[in-house]
Amino acid sequence: MKTFRSEFTPAFISQWIPGVLIERKALSIKNAAELEEADQNSVCFYQNKSFYNKLLTSKAGLIFVPADFDENLLPETNLLKVENPYIYYMMLLQKWLELEKPALNTDRHSSVVVHETAEVAEDVEIGANTVIAEGVKIGSGSYIGANCYIGKNVELGKNCYLYANVNIYEDCRLGANVILHSGVIIGADGFGFLLHQGKQFKLPQVGNVVIHNDVEIGANSCVDRATLGSTVIGEGTKLDNLVQIGHNCVIGKSTIICAQVGLAGNTRVGDRVYLAGQVGSADHVNIGDEVMVGAQSGVAGDVAAGKKVFGYPARDAGLTKRIMAAEKHLPEVVKHYRRKLKETK
Amino acid sequence: MKTFRSEFTPAFISQWIPGVLIERKALSIKNAAELEEADQNSVCFYQNKSFYNKLLTSKAGLIFVPADFDENLLPETNLLKVENPYIYYMMLLQKWLELEKPALNTDRHSSVVVHETAEVAEDVEIGANTVIAEGVKIGSGSYIGANCYIGKNVELGKNCYLYANVNIYEDCRLGANVILHSGVIIGADGFGFLLHQGKQFKLPQVGNVVIHNDVEIGANSCVDRATLGSTVIGEGTKLDNLVQIGHNCVIGKSTIICAQVGLAGNTRVGDRVYLAGQVGSADHVNIGDEVMVGAQSGVAGDVAAGKKVFGYPARDAGLTKRIMAAEKHLPEVVKHYRRKLKETK
Amino acid sequence: MKTFRSEFTPAFISQWIPGVLIERKALSIKNAAELEEADQNSVCFYQNKSFYNKLLTSKAGLIFVPADFDENLLPETNLLKVENPYIYYMMLLQKWLELEKPALNTDRHSSVVVHETAEVAEDVEIGANTVIAEGVKIGSGSYIGANCYIGKNVELGKNCYLYANVNIYEDCRLGANVILHSGVIIGADGFGFLLHQGKQFKLPQVGNVVIHNDVEIGANSCVDRATLGSTVIGEGTKLDNLVQIGHNCVIGKSTIICAQVGLAGNTRVGDRVYLAGQVGSADHVNIGDEVMVGAQSGVAGDVAAGKKVFGYPARDAGLTKRIMAAEKHLPEVVKHYRRKLKETK
Repeated sequence: MKTFRSEFTPAFISQWIPGVLIERKALSIKNAAELEEADQNSVCFYQNKSFYNKLLTSKAGLIFVPADFDENLLPETNLLKVENPYIYYMMLLQKWLELEKPALNTDRHSSVVVHETAEVAEDVEIGANTVIAEGVKIGSGSYIGANCYIGKNVELGKNCYLYANVNIYEDCRLGANVILHSGVIIGADGFGFLLHQGKQFKLPQVGNVVIHNDVEIGANSCVDRATLGSTVIGEGTKLDNLVQIGHNCVIGKSTIICAQVGLAGNTRVGDRVYLAGQVGSADHVNIGDEVMVGAQSGVAGDVAAGKKVFGYPARDAGLTKRIMAAEKHLPEVVKHYRRKLKETK
Repeated sequence: MKTFRSEFTPAFISQWIPGVLIERKALSIKNAAELEEADQNSVCFYQNKSFYNKLLTSKAGLIFVPADFDENLLPETNLLKVENPYIYYMMLLQKWLELEKPALNTDRHSSVVVHETAEVAEDVEIGANTVIAEGVKIGSGSYIGANCYIGKNVELGKNCYLYANVNIYEDCRLGANVILHSGVIIGADGFGFLLHQGKQFKLPQVGNVVIHNDVEIGANSCVDRATLGSTVIGEGTKLDNLVQIGHNCVIGKSTIICAQVGLAGNTRVGDRVYLAGQVGSADHVNIGDEVMVGAQSGVAGDVAAGKKVFGYPARDAGLTKRIMAAEKHLPEVVKHYRRKLKETK
Repeated sequence: MKTFRSEFTPAFISQWIPGVLIERKALSIKNAAELEEADQNSVCFYQNKSFYNKLLTSKAGLIFVPADFDENLLPETNLLKVENPYIYYMMLLQKWLELEKPALNTDRHSSVVVHETAEVAEDVEIGANTVIAEGVKIGSGSYIGANCYIGKNVELGKNCYLYANVNIYEDCRLGANVILHSGVIIGADGFGFLLHQGKQFKLPQVGNVVIHNDVEIGANSCVDRATLGSTVIGEGTKLDNLVQIGHNCVIGKSTIICAQVGLAGNTRVGDRVYLAGQVGSADHVNIGDEVMVGAQSGVAGDVAAGKKVFGYPARDAGLTKRIMAAEKHLPEVVKHYRRKLKETK
């Protein structure tokens, strides 16, 4: 249950969110909750029929329901009939959070270290124990949490939000509205070594990372710097937690990369691609626009735009599903084959 | 080799640990070691016969051996015959560590930041450069390491132990005796986006994380906050390193989740489940009590209580093993089939 | 593009790097760039023919080309003909970085905490907000970044380089020239629990981690401490990001472990082994010298020295490739078999 500082009547909420209000009780809405934990100050939503029993017993003060919902089923509850309860509910939360967004606090604890050459916009908030190295530029409206380290010559655009304990290596560049969660590491060295006379020689990694506007990166994810040039995360792309992006990868726009995905060096990923959890790619692979890759798949070669692939190795998703279905019969088929073989000898 | 501050005679140890002492030499036991690195002040154990040669040449001052061990094989060594050498040895270490557990140090370095509204029990130790935000509550006996960030309104129960550099986002709740290792991130946003007109819109994540008593979470693991409601880790459950728990997952009690496992959103996991390393689950999957899932498996559907599953996709473990055995013959079977096909054309 | 502080003429560079200089223009080389982003002050290399079009249109001031390159193709560009453009280019970068390596800065911010019993060599640089616990020893020439935590009795050799936000638990030992990237956790507890009467009892983890000379460990990787004895990373071995090394693993020399690999407890890995991304090993497995393991493989049993294995489960790489090729026909084979079966009934 999320309790907000501000509170609203159902009537007020129905002015924000387009729909038909069925009002039965006067009360204040102060929190957002799941149906089963709701109290009379909660706003909830109902969309999926598997939650029907929870709906009937919910104590919520206001429930978003589908436009064709029979309001007589809940004769004493305030209802808001909307086109898509889940989406409209999320819109309400979005507005509510926006309204309550705390103002940036420009007071700085004595533990904050900002190098004299750094250019930090006046309104930027910097958390305790954060270190801003020389030559860093941070755009207006940005929030830098506690315990962060921003390396030399890093540039951040406007309205970035870095949670506590984010680390950015030198020379990396972030656009505007970038969100980095705790534990994110941007710009560590690409993994390049050369075995020579039995020893591994480190190949210098002198490129950087460029992250475009509106990117969000999840907790403990890593984006390595390029060997030369830049590792690039395109505008509006979202990475989940514990993701690994190798050196010189170039990721397109509005792409979704789920948790624990690992892209080897020089992978190219298009726009609006969907990589499910724990997917891996070989290096120098091209994944086209709007490709969908199923969970845990191993992408070993190029994937044309629009394709759905899945499996280890990643193949056409339909083929992999047929193979997986057929596999169940494999022990029997092999047994049969080997018996036949014996008989014919 | 772990050297302790306190030291004991074999006779004293045999009062702690039930068994039969065969004493040959007077000496002090000061450290816990493996057989091959041991010196005359070491206590070791011997259980697995593959270590027999190491046993014979060990310089250990005291060795825990099985109850039926022939003590004439080591005529000059102090032996403690016990029911289960490994377990009883671990019991000794546990007692020893407990005895030497340092008292909490309530002195605070000037870099520590505790918000004036936080309610921190008097005996809590807080490491340097740690930040405790407003409204936080921390129970008696807890230890918070250096460089941690505890967000707004987080509650920690009694006797929690947070290693250095743990991050907890706002509103999350931890029970008593919770252990979080370095780099753990609790409560980062669930991964929810909606593709609309070619852009990814962020779905607000306003739930929290609830961690019950006696949970331990390994280094660099992440537990995401719920979209609405709570992501829950049940009492006594243990997570290894680099684990990803998605938003709204509900994990039962005394469950084991090995390294690099990833659970997508809304996964339900029962009590005393065992998920081996690198397992992944699809979202909205139910995994029943006492299920065992083999390493790297992909759990794509519900798994009934008590089942052993394995593979990609996860299936009955016996079936997967038979498929894997049969696969070796697959190239030959396919070759044979295709030859036949040609002949009949 | 990496811009250096120092600049050189092509003639000067050709004194550093053995090759034949074809000089056409007098200019200064100040940066290292990819062919397409280069300007007249850039040095680039050309080796792979797929970059031929980029070569022809590059504005680079100096390009490393193969010894047999026809210099008339680029009549106005300074060229350095070398045996291996990529490697020689990397040698140049290495020398350049070495030359510009900043001197260690021994001034310490007031937020740095160094315990009075720690023995830190005089020339060591320690970043802001870093905590050095009691009994720590740090060798000469080492750099410890900001926000690090170095636990009790940890020893670091000479010339170690720890990026910001590295955490080392007590009693661990690092050799000389060890590089740890941000977010690395060394020495967290091994994952050992015993289910007894429905509860998980924690097995004490009293060993440590020993990291030999010239090891590099990537961002957010974890090396767990041994239950007893030591988890060992051998000389010159390199780990990529988000790698998990379980308790009591022993890794040999000059081995490469790619991103997101997970080794369960007690895995033994030889020298000059190559583990590709997302590989997992079962516990107590032996992987011999110079073994190569393909991406996402699951190593469930011992692998003899020199073998190439691949797959889930990991098998001879050639066999796995034949199985994967045959799998495409599996649905058809199974369909055929089941039809036959019906007919004979």
